[in-house]
Amino acid sequence: MKEYSIIGKSLPKIDAVAKATGKAIYTDDLKLPRMLTGKILRSPNPHARIVHMDTTRAKKLPGVKAIITGKDTGTRKIGIIEAYRDLWDQEALCLNKVRYIGDEVAAVAAIDEDTALEALELIDVEYEKLPAVFDPEEAMKPGAPVIHEGFENNIYIRTVLESGDVEKGFRDSYRVFEDRFETQCVVHCCMEPHTSVARYLDGQLTLWTSTQTPFAIRSPLACVLDLDEDKVRVIAMVVGGGFGGKVELFPMDVCCAVLSIKTGCPVKITLTRKEEFETTRTRHPMIIELKTGVKRDGTILVKQVRNILDGGAYGGGIGVGGPFISTLFSSLPYKLPNIKMEALRVYTNKSVAGAMRGYTAPQIHFADDSHMDMIADELGMDPLDLRKKNAITPGYKTASGLKITSCAFSETIDKVSRSIGWREKRGKLKKESKGVAVGCSGFISGTGLALNNTPKNYTSMAIIKLHTEGFATVYTGATDIGQGSQTVLSMIAAEELGISLDRVKMVAADTELTPFDAGSFGSRVTFHAGNAVRRAAADAKAQLFAVVAEKLEANPDDLESKGGRIYSVDNPDIGMAFEDAIWACQEKNGGMEVIGRGVFRHDIEPSVFTTGIGNYSPAYTFSTGGAEVKVDLETGQVEVLKFKFAHDIGRAINPNNVRAQLEGSICMGLGFALFEQILFEEGRMLNPTFLDYKIPTALDMPETEIILVESEEPDAPFGAKECGEGSVAPVGPAIANAVCDAIGVRIKSLPLTPEKVLRGLKRIG
Amino acid sequence: MKEYSIIGKSLPKIDAVAKATGKAIYTDDLKLPRMLTGKILRSPNPHARIVHMDTTRAKKLPGVKAIITGKDTGTRKIGIIEAYRDLWDQEALCLNKVRYIGDEVAAVAAIDEDTALEALELIDVEYEKLPAVFDPEEAMKPGAPVIHEGFENNIYIRTVLESGDVEKGFRDSYRVFEDRFETQCVVHCCMEPHTSVARYLDGQLTLWTSTQTPFAIRSPLACVLDLDEDKVRVIAMVVGGGFGGKVELFPMDVCCAVLSIKTGCPVKITLTRKEEFETTRTRHPMIIELKTGVKRDGTILVKQVRNILDGGAYGGGIGVGGPFISTLFSSLPYKLPNIKMEALRVYTNKSVAGAMRGYTAPQIHFADDSHMDMIADELGMDPLDLRKKNAITPGYKTASGLKITSCAFSETIDKVSRSIGWREKRGKLKKESKGVAVGCSGFISGTGLALNNTPKNYTSMAIIKLHTEGFATVYTGATDIGQGSQTVLSMIAAEELGISLDRVKMVAADTELTPFDAGSFGSRVTFHAGNAVRRAAADAKAQLFAVVAEKLEANPDDLESKGGRIYSVDNPDIGMAFEDAIWACQEKNGGMEVIGRGVFRHDIEPSVFTTGIGNYSPAYTFSTGGAEVKVDLETGQVEVLKFKFAHDIGRAINPNNVRAQLEGSICMGLGFALFEQILFEEGRMLNPTFLDYKIPTALDMPETEIILVESEEPDAPFGAKECGEGSVAPVGPAIANAVCDAIGVRIKSLPLTPEKVLRGLKRIG
Repeated sequence: MKEYSIIGKSLPKIDAVAKATGKAIYTDDLKLPRMLTGKILRSPNPHARIVHMDTTRAKKLPGVKAIITGKDTGTRKIGIIEAYRDLWDQEALCLNKVRYIGDEVAAVAAIDEDTALEALELIDVEYEKLPAVFDPEEAMKPGAPVIHEGFENNIYIRTVLESGDVEKGFRDSYRVFEDRFETQCVVHCCMEPHTSVARYLDGQLTLWTSTQTPFAIRSPLACVLDLDEDKVRVIAMVVGGGFGGKVELFPMDVCCAVLSIKTGCPVKITLTRKEEFETTRTRHPMIIELKTGVKRDGTILVKQVRNILDGGAYGGGIGVGGPFISTLFSSLPYKLPNIKMEALRVYTNKSVAGAMRGYTAPQIHFADDSHMDMIADELGMDPLDLRKKNAITPGYKTASGLKITSCAFSETIDKVSRSIGWREKRGKLKKESKGVAVGCSGFISGTGLALNNTPKNYTSMAIIKLHTEGFATVYTGATDIGQGSQTVLSMIAAEELGISLDRVKMVAADTELTPFDAGSFGSRVTFHAGNAVRRAAADAKAQLFAVVAEKLEANPDDLESKGGRIYSVDNPDIGMAFEDAIWACQEKNGGMEVIGRGVFRHDIEPSVFTTGIGNYSPAYTFSTGGAEVKVDLETGQVEVLKFKFAHDIGRAINPNNVRAQLEGSICMGLGFALFEQILFEEGRMLNPTFLDYKIPTALDMPETEIILVESEEPDAPFGAKECGEGSVAPVGPAIANAVCDAIGVRIKSLPLTPEKVLRGLKRIG
Repeated sequence: MKEYSIIGKSLPKIDAVAKATGKAIYTDDLKLPRMLTGKILRSPNPHARIVHMDTTRAKKLPGVKAIITGKDTGTRKIGIIEAYRDLWDQEALCLNKVRYIGDEVAAVAAIDEDTALEALELIDVEYEKLPAVFDPEEAMKPGAPVIHEGFENNIYIRTVLESGDVEKGFRDSYRVFEDRFETQCVVHCCMEPHTSVARYLDGQLTLWTSTQTPFAIRSPLACVLDLDEDKVRVIAMVVGGGFGGKVELFPMDVCCAVLSIKTGCPVKITLTRKEEFETTRTRHPMIIELKTGVKRDGTILVKQVRNILDGGAYGGGIGVGGPFISTLFSSLPYKLPNIKMEALRVYTNKSVAGAMRGYTAPQIHFADDSHMDMIADELGMDPLDLRKKNAITPGYKTASGLKITSCAFSETIDKVSRSIGWREKRGKLKKESKGVAVGCSGFISGTGLALNNTPKNYTSMAIIKLHTEGFATVYTGATDIGQGSQTVLSMIAAEELGISLDRVKMVAADTELTPFDAGSFGSRVTFHAGNAVRRAAADAKAQLFAVVAEKLEANPDDLESKGGRIYSVDNPDIGMAFEDAIWACQEKNGGMEVIGRGVFRHDIEPSVFTTGIGNYSPAYTFSTGGAEVKVDLETGQVEVLKFKFAHDIGRAINPNNVRAQLEGSICMGLGFALFEQILFEEGRMLNPTFLDYKIPTALDMPETEIILVESEEPDAPFGAKECGEGSVAPVGPAIANAVCDAIGVRIKSLPLTPEKVLRGLKRIG
């Protein structure tokens, strides 16, 4: 592979010092003159009609500046994906009924937090309780309580797709395997809770907020406020973790805005940790039913899937895409000639589910890759052989229409199995209650989905301005949510321009300052925004080269920019400093600043929206995780001793950053696999605190090895594909499979709690 | 004159609501996490050697985070004009000696203001007092104390120019008149004191500050900190008045930066009102010696001028330009075929003088236009006739090389004399101790001086980005210091683009976000930045027209953009909405955003820098003020009853804003003429407070009339020239002349205090 000056180097993140020293400015750090504190009154009932609301007493409290209810926020629903506007189903503040515990019913702006909280207590709401339903399968039964009018059996959205000859597939199969898996409710646990500051001034609303998608939320925010879009500016501040939980417009954003409009003062709402747990988003709990037909040699002939997503009370946000994306992941990472898939998202009276790191992939691949080990076991095959026999290869097109370009899936299996010591250990550590296993996954490198409109679906644009002092400012709408995208994008710009990284400044994620970018979701930033930035840099460079070539009497094609100098490739002594080239270019062009522009577009095949079949992403990544576990037979406790992880990264722009992303994936996957679980009782979260809801810490981490497999994707910026999102997915099945290898207990629901282990041990005697 | 949709309309300032409601965010409103308070220790001596400094006790005070002295800020001097770097003469913190009371010797960063102030008291400084000098003529005498080594007779800089045959001029003169005038020390009195916040993070310094010239101060700041210029970002916040007093880099800016570097925390320094008076800048007190030769009919044949500027302790800022600019104003607004001019700027041990609204013009024109009335009196001529006989006319080139393009000077004289009732009142109100008179001035419409480098002297650049939502963002480096430039620039953009004003957003005055602009000084913004913005808008529009023409099958030259629509001039029904055009243009160009760029350049003739003779500004403005005063013979108090003001504005972009600027000029001119005066005793300011130093309030304002004379300057944006700076100048002479008309007393020094009036009355008996 080609060597670069900056690409491929493990440079520190450009915002590392600011974050590590506490100097980064998050939304909650904003202190504006006359700013008020906002607080939200929430439903204590999982399902109830609002009979009467009286804010009189609260309004009289000194220090209260405004109180708003559904009458103030209006009847327009909020949502996020323009194409599904018909399905936007959430009121910013409930008008007539509440649908889960935490649902927003009123909001207060006051001079301080204490006053705002006191005011909440003085708002009188009379509820008429309604029967509620908390289980998706119960919710689909006839006679279940109706959560939203017009949705039969509480089914919010349903995706069905079929490709090949499924019946024949099963007919031709040597064996057919059927299994049902379940996954639990977990939450993102971003260190930074959702925070917004709204400031309405002279007809113009500015929202500073902790969001992954400033452009995407501007549009529905303008809509619900009945403002023209040009009157709303959304600025993403430094974001303290997103993981998919900050891609939507939230009622709190609307409340902030309306309170600011009412009071004429800036208003800040920061969620408490309890609110963060209960009222933002969860990972969809899922039921996954699989039916797979295989030939005698293990070749998969057919697969039938039914995914049931427990959506909670609303779906108009990113949740609407859950069923489709779950079928997409169901069709990776193995060759499936014939498929039949159905996915349903069902309303229940619980907290709202949405996107969370991997968006259904961790659930799907837990089921799929547990299932693969079970099939191998039944067929008496080595699970690795079964996987490799069916592994997707470069150039493959899935029955669901995904066009695989680069693919190093088999290589990830090989590398992980070697690293975990498959040959020596698989099935051979039972005496010590130890086991090894792998789990695999496939994922998308971004989506062409713009959420809102953009000309011809150009979902990432970038602008690069060169300064005569020899530095460049990159304007990108993409948001760094901690994943390091600003570092990656500035490395791409620096490499393409041929200057050092410290000469690249980033301006990001501001709907007024930066060009359109669909946002940070679906693992799209490196690929999409990265391509846009690279093209903008190339555009700026070409402008310089045209002028430099003339000055040097050279051909622009023979020039190279590197190390802050532009020179002739043939004769490197002939050249000029990068800043001199900017000066020269500006002088040549009548003083005009050198501005490069770049865009990237990748269209989702239109058939995706009709048949569910078609290509979705410009490229796909593949991962294999290998776990070695030890089970305590007395307590049922599973300890992960080692976790080895290989990821088909395409090209690692910044290897250390990729490793950190993958280590983070292992950590989050571990919590999901072993112990994280939101518990509900009659719709009430029982553990919405960090005291009761545990996430893995450094001490929980096993010995890890990260193996980067570089397949160099041709259409990607410097060959780089996604990392860190789908890579959560192999962790669960690898651990579940290793537990089975260790003690022979197959657990088909997450998390793998000691109770389930002990129950399993008891069952197998 | 052509009618426009937006230009020429008196629209409210775009920031009016924010400012009037207290919601605008000034530098002092910034609250950053972990921010410290900075305070500066200042010299109590007008001239002294620093023998010893000990910060030990201060450092021990809990809450003190850093203390810096000259050792920390180093030996590099600060200044502002690159071309005069040899004359930069101020240390950020004095190393060896102090030169005025208030000179910076140390700075502290602490957790709060009280701690910082306490720390200042604990810093021990031992001084050895040196003889000091406070009067510029004394300072030039042999044996006077030497304030800066290497400057003979304390003369900092001297400008000499001669044109025509001066000797012959005097020989040929019918009469020669000699006079000496003096003006006092006054200060800007911005409502917002100088404030800076510095934040050093990871090698990058950001300075938020109340400045008129973010680009210009970046360069010397980077230099003194020994940072590359790309590592320094300067952001001008909302500025609460500048008036020329915020065009320089101040020691406090450097202290903020160094304290932030030392502590790793953001540091804010806000000057107290006393510091603002004593340690920022004053208007140069001046001595002006005039010798004028005239023909019998009043035609001026020759003029000899000697301007002595009392510069105070330093000159390396904008002060260095004082002598030259004073000679420029000495050559306006009358035709002077033969001239000999000398101007000196002299060091004294007092507060530092710099630019202040009109930069020497109020002083010069007070002298010149008092002198004109005295000449007319001696010649027995009507002072208006004398002025009109000698008035500069369109197309004239002055002996000093200024090329006059548009000029409606005589018209301003006519209009004011009619308005003030010259014919009925002049010389006819003595019985009531009333008098009427006029004062005139000429001024520059901007300067090509970039202060720092820019390619080929392009001193204003602008970028306009069009959004598919149908709005435009204007990026300009120009700073709105309250004069309304953002409103003017957005009106220019809106007019040229053909959209409503509320669809234009401004991003201004940020060295990283906005393109280069020399800054807001020398009355350059409307003309220079306005031209750049208009050109950027025209560039963006042309891009739209190219695409729209194709869609409409029309010729781009036949298209017009107006009212948010682009259409065929011949057939207005054929057209499309502005936002649709942006979409179409973006689609046509592969998704690239529509970005317009514009630059403006006007070169100062190089001979200006060698001989002092040559053209300086792209256009010149002319004003006449007419005063009617009443003098209280008992108290000597002068009351201005009426002030009529006519200004050759070229074209009023926003007439109400122009009126407000001119009313402000009258107000500031009034204070300068009648009572504002900084008093010194042994170098100590006696009245550095608003209790002791009075500025005019609304109650002091006379009945005014503002008359806009539109001469339509061909090279200006929509014909608009400057207003509001040079327009301070006619106020003083008009009032002084009116006092003379009323009571026959000629006062040749400002302010026109009751004491001087009474002394004059006594003298003439």
